[in-house]
Amino acid sequence: MQYYGFDAWIVPSTDPHQSEYVAECWQARAWLSGFTGSAGTVVVTQTKAGLWTDSRYYIRAAQELAGSGIELFKVGFSGVLTYSEWLAAEMESGGIVGLDGGVFSIAEVERLEKAFHDKSITINHNQDLVGQLWDDRPAIPMNPVFLLDDNFSGETRTAKFSRIRGKIKEQGADAHLLSSLDDIAWTLNIRGNDVSYNPVAICYLLIKDDEVRLFIHPEKVSQSVTAALQADGIIIAEYEELFPYLQRLPSQVIVLIDPEKTNYKIMVAIEEHAKIKLGSSIPEGLKAVKNATELAGIRNAHIRDGVAMVRWLYWLDTQIHLTDHTEATIAEKLAELRSIGEHYQGLSFGTISAYQANGAIGHYAPRSETAAALKPEGLLVIDSGGQYLDGTTDITRTICLGSPTREQKRAFTAVLKAHIKLATSTFPHNTQGVQLDAITKEPLWQQGFECYHGIGHGIGHYLNVHEGPQRFSKSNTVPIELGMVSTNEPGVYFEGKFGIRIENVVITVPHATSEFGDFYGFETVSWCPIDIDLIEIPLLNTAEMDWLNGYHQTVYEKLAPYLTSEEKSWLRIETRQV
Amino acid sequence: MQYYGFDAWIVPSTDPHQSEYVAECWQARAWLSGFTGSAGTVVVTQTKAGLWTDSRYYIRAAQELAGSGIELFKVGFSGVLTYSEWLAAEMESGGIVGLDGGVFSIAEVERLEKAFHDKSITINHNQDLVGQLWDDRPAIPMNPVFLLDDNFSGETRTAKFSRIRGKIKEQGADAHLLSSLDDIAWTLNIRGNDVSYNPVAICYLLIKDDEVRLFIHPEKVSQSVTAALQADGIIIAEYEELFPYLQRLPSQVIVLIDPEKTNYKIMVAIEEHAKIKLGSSIPEGLKAVKNATELAGIRNAHIRDGVAMVRWLYWLDTQIHLTDHTEATIAEKLAELRSIGEHYQGLSFGTISAYQANGAIGHYAPRSETAAALKPEGLLVIDSGGQYLDGTTDITRTICLGSPTREQKRAFTAVLKAHIKLATSTFPHNTQGVQLDAITKEPLWQQGFECYHGIGHGIGHYLNVHEGPQRFSKSNTVPIELGMVSTNEPGVYFEGKFGIRIENVVITVPHATSEFGDFYGFETVSWCPIDIDLIEIPLLNTAEMDWLNGYHQTVYEKLAPYLTSEEKSWLRIETRQV
Repeated sequence: MQYYGFDAWIVPSTDPHQSEYVAECWQARAWLSGFTGSAGTVVVTQTKAGLWTDSRYYIRAAQELAGSGIELFKVGFSGVLTYSEWLAAEMESGGIVGLDGGVFSIAEVERLEKAFHDKSITINHNQDLVGQLWDDRPAIPMNPVFLLDDNFSGETRTAKFSRIRGKIKEQGADAHLLSSLDDIAWTLNIRGNDVSYNPVAICYLLIKDDEVRLFIHPEKVSQSVTAALQADGIIIAEYEELFPYLQRLPSQVIVLIDPEKTNYKIMVAIEEHAKIKLGSSIPEGLKAVKNATELAGIRNAHIRDGVAMVRWLYWLDTQIHLTDHTEATIAEKLAELRSIGEHYQGLSFGTISAYQANGAIGHYAPRSETAAALKPEGLLVIDSGGQYLDGTTDITRTICLGSPTREQKRAFTAVLKAHIKLATSTFPHNTQGVQLDAITKEPLWQQGFECYHGIGHGIGHYLNVHEGPQRFSKSNTVPIELGMVSTNEPGVYFEGKFGIRIENVVITVPHATSEFGDFYGFETVSWCPIDIDLIEIPLLNTAEMDWLNGYHQTVYEKLAPYLTSEEKSWLRIETRQV
Repeated sequence: MQYYGFDAWIVPSTDPHQSEYVAECWQARAWLSGFTGSAGTVVVTQTKAGLWTDSRYYIRAAQELAGSGIELFKVGFSGVLTYSEWLAAEMESGGIVGLDGGVFSIAEVERLEKAFHDKSITINHNQDLVGQLWDDRPAIPMNPVFLLDDNFSGETRTAKFSRIRGKIKEQGADAHLLSSLDDIAWTLNIRGNDVSYNPVAICYLLIKDDEVRLFIHPEKVSQSVTAALQADGIIIAEYEELFPYLQRLPSQVIVLIDPEKTNYKIMVAIEEHAKIKLGSSIPEGLKAVKNATELAGIRNAHIRDGVAMVRWLYWLDTQIHLTDHTEATIAEKLAELRSIGEHYQGLSFGTISAYQANGAIGHYAPRSETAAALKPEGLLVIDSGGQYLDGTTDITRTICLGSPTREQKRAFTAVLKAHIKLATSTFPHNTQGVQLDAITKEPLWQQGFECYHGIGHGIGHYLNVHEGPQRFSKSNTVPIELGMVSTNEPGVYFEGKFGIRIENVVITVPHATSEFGDFYGFETVSWCPIDIDLIEIPLLNTAEMDWLNGYHQTVYEKLAPYLTSEEKSWLRIETRQV
């Protein structure tokens, strides 16, 4: 830092593609600080160091930072400065902050510039200090890319190119550079294995009117895949060829890039030679609206996933008292049962198997050494999902391993009412995520509960389990469209005691049309019983009871054909009418 | 335009103070176009002219523009360009748009600059073309200012100065220039009569650590008012002295101004000599949270207002069949009954008295020549309010003059359910207007109805009937705080047929505290029966029925002491339990 004249250095948790899950070679923040959570930023000054992370990771970060001399800043706590506010306060006027523009989004750099403006602090984005220091840095992963059949994707890549080109033109641009790995995988109908849980390959894609160019390490692309892509007119270039290519762009070319998804270094490179148009990633919006083939696949994958969940719940119910089990061993068992399913490709995220007080810790992931041992008492939150060739799943159930307390039943029933509220909601077209988030939380508020996270997120079709642009959250204003697939996952958490969450996946479907236009609703596609023993039945109204009974009846009908007679008998009881 | 080299000229509907209700001398857009609505922008190019207005005024604008050659652009219709988009499309690259920076907010000019950026269109904000052309332009109104007693305001102006100064310092500024007339009236505990319905005086106010300077025409300020203000250290300067004063500001002074409430000309004037800090008006946030004295006054004013409403409803019910009445004559009768109330100062806005299909027209204002004649059939929407020394009121009732249809009852009941939803809601602190708007609209959506306007707005304490910063609307993210006073006014409208709206005023009050923090709710303070004949009783659930019966019982208890025995008997029936 002294050599370059930097007063501070910022290390974020993301990669050149602004990924949520990051390959090891870009886990610089974890390497530097020891903190392994998926979100967190480290700031180093000449005399201090701090880590900023959110409520999901307060506990893990405190453990992992112990003794490191790095101060923990809890993002979201009132009175806690953001890292940019902290830097603006700590630094002298006219100071220099260094960062690697290659792993910061354009939008994030602009937010920093704004925060630093009043103190005339400048940003140097040209150095990768970590790269210079990190001796045993792992290599970029080199796993093979494979093609996703049109029978699964439902739309050829050339048809997708044509829709994307239409929208590039609408925006007055000539080319669209994609950095987001799932946007590229969707566009090309390819999948990869470079990142945990997300079936994507590390690459960039440039789409012009007369050209589609994929920047990827050629080791990943077999001859047959190359042939298939080339047959559709795709030029395959070296991953490292991106920057030289951008430097050869003709000066009149206008390149559309998404400021939240594109790194700052790319913007600088384009601006040196051609023109920039900032706007949302076009594939992000297109891929959020699933086609009929994708929806059919998602419905089927969820039946297979439900079978695994039910077989696991049956196992848990009948075997758990016989042997010693921990949060970790039961998660392994669930993964094993899932893996039997047709088209299974792996987990869609690290299983959250959280017993008792651990259920109140956001994104708790058991590790074999420290996993809690289960006893015939208390609540278990199990949040898990699978990747199948025909869809991605994400489901949470909260189950009682003994006799629930009054307090647990009251909270579980409130969460169930919220879950049913979204499942049965109807809303006009153009309704935004923030509106549905509020409507779903209202039954919680009535009982004096609050859910600090959003009620749901978009989910990919055999792609990332977290996918934009829609989200049911306090700040998301994207309209919910027909064919979007999202989660419905209200929860409440009692620190040090227990947590409750109930999650299914829902598809936006038409509901009705009136003189006020089209109204939409949701079709639930996850099938797995909701623990009736945790419900305070008298607190449900008739409509809620009808939903629960109808849901449980369908769970039985959909899954019974795939179960043994013992499992079937068990499921019959778990899905009894109330 | 040719003389100045302008390719286009924009005339907005507001004034130097960004007022909603504008004195005649600043009604340039009405003078130029003939369109008299409160919101609308005229754009003139060398060959075309257009007026942009919103759904409240589509019908009135079409009537008033007929034959003018001015094209009507319906803002909010899908596919209709905004005036800035239209200008950007119509004009040649490098063109010049003229406007009077004295009547455009800083924020609006910045939005225009952004829209024009791609075509390098520049803005000249130095000319007041209308002022040069408008020969018989009325003078700035010169009505006397008067003091609002501390018994009504509940806080001395010096106490307010001290709170404002604290917040100026927090923001790192030295001075705060206020342009908003209601912000100034609240800060100084003064009221005026320069604008219809809003009890404000045209002036500017500058607050510094060592100085409070009021820029106002001295004709408005009597000796006794002057003495009272000067006793609290306020310097009174000429209204026209503002710009010379800004030009004399020391160069290191940082002036905080609200970009939505301050005109562009002021920003330019300050920037020439001193420094600018953009931020929200401090008094806007402070005055939204009413103190105990204001809240007590608001509760009392609403009882008087309810008495006027009930006496009017009784009169309408018993007299309407005997004589010829129109929307306009019944509105006059209501104003007359209101005017009897203690502390009455005038109407808080032009009464919306809208019969049958007129009830579906937003902001319909009857004019004596064209007002619809009433018959013993159909629905009447009456939306009205008064200004009292101790509070401002705003109430809407929809009443049936004959036998309601099934369709009318179904819609009325849905609107009532939405109204009750907000009235009985409970929500954590930091809940935003957009969230409560969604929660309130959900019962409408369940029935396939939609309300295109926000569910409610802030309301002043003997000040403007529309007051920020909070609003229950699709885009407002201001947290709802304890002591804020707002309207609760869901509605549905059937074009060409009828409209329904039910509106009461509510105060944010504490509801409960749990481990999840403080929860708030609403106290309704408007008292007037809701037409039971329009309710489809079987559609109400028990909680809704309880609210309605409790509300009606309180209406009777609060108002009966002020009514004649005939009125009391009538009210007893109208507030019967269901």
